[in-house]
Amino acid sequence: MEFGIRLRSVFSVVVFLLYIESSAYGRVLSNSKPDRKNVVASARWLVAENTWGVLSTVSGDLRGAPWGNVVSFSDGIPGKGTGIPYFYLTTLDVTARNALKDPRASLAISEKPIGTCTKDPMDPTCAKLTLTGKLLPLKQGSEEAKVAEKALFAKHPEMIGWPKSHDFQFFKLEICHIFLLNWYGGPKLITVQEYLNAKPIKPVSSL
Amino acid sequence: MEFGIRLRSVFSVVVFLLYIESSAYGRVLSNSKPDRKNVVASARWLVAENTWGVLSTVSGDLRGAPWGNVVSFSDGIPGKGTGIPYFYLTTLDVTARNALKDPRASLAISEKPIGTCTKDPMDPTCAKLTLTGKLLPLKQGSEEAKVAEKALFAKHPEMIGWPKSHDFQFFKLEICHIFLLNWYGGPKLITVQEYLNAKPIKPVSSL
Repeated sequence: MEFGIRLRSVFSVVVFLLYIESSAYGRVLSNSKPDRKNVVASARWLVAENTWGVLSTVSGDLRGAPWGNVVSFSDGIPGKGTGIPYFYLTTLDVTARNALKDPRASLAISEKPIGTCTKDPMDPTCAKLTLTGKLLPLKQGSEEAKVAEKALFAKHPEMIGWPKSHDFQFFKLEICHIFLLNWYGGPKLITVQEYLNAKPIKPVSSL
Repeated sequence: MEFGIRLRSVFSVVVFLLYIESSAYGRVLSNSKPDRKNVVASARWLVAENTWGVLSTVSGDLRGAPWGNVVSFSDGIPGKGTGIPYFYLTTLDVTARNALKDPRASLAISEKPIGTCTKDPMDPTCAKLTLTGKLLPLKQGSEEAKVAEKALFAKHPEMIGWPKSHDFQFFKLEICHIFLLNWYGGPKLITVQEYLNAKPIKPVSSL
């Protein structure tokens, strides 16, 4: 009897710790990854689930070198993403300065930070996406700047407190080309129209 | 007395689970991050501890756009890294093709995948690094190609089994410029010489 009670208390602790674990690493345990054959959903899922990537611009300082920079982004509030990546950048940083001189840019993201890929990041089954286009500042107070603000502040609440004096502005990547690799057999063809018309990805918590 | 025994058994389970946790997420609990004031060690640590990043090249297909691609890399076997990023690329993939036409390239990496940053990936305390230079193929069978092979296969054992028919080659980034942000106050100045002369970063397991 006493043994039974002790077992139960141990069991409770295990369940409690597993609960904490599943909260902290929820995205690993609840896998929302779309079927690989649905390439449009796969691309939109990578953008909806990732919160940061590398934004490359043409370097003004380094003779036009393709210059990547780690940035946070958001394509919308969870469950209502549009697929368009928005950014909160300051001209104190090189990327925004580069873009204002030459808007050509790309955003590269990996499945790895989402937690669903157990293979090497370069294995073709570990999905990766590069969106190429123009990195454009949004007019202050415009409708799209408000959309960008909601999108970014929902996924990056720390941004709300970033210093006003640093003159952060909202930018978007106007997508012209999509490169997706999510299985063997080379990159998958997706048009920008197909990508933008796809329905929003449901966040894991609602599945 | 009985209560004491029960408490002890619960405590044992907690300790055991924390042990499992620390093994699985060891890099989070055993923090090898250098002092932020040691900017050279900080840069070398980001390269030694990360296994993937975004390699940007000048796109031949997309009118010279700066084109980022998720890639695996290694700067050496753990504890003996040189700071030079090596890659295992195939001309079936766009990045290698771009580099063979125009070697200008950059590698951007974040502290985020290492697991030591709890802030937003764009917060200045969440370290990030961009190495800019030339992406060069290494002569097959050369001493440096052997160094690259050892470096890459040690950190990416899956690469050993990648199809021979895909004609993978070893490449390196010959670094010309270093951008590090690891605290408030803008990017830190590091010369390529300082960076390459620094001593190798010890892996977490040996600390």
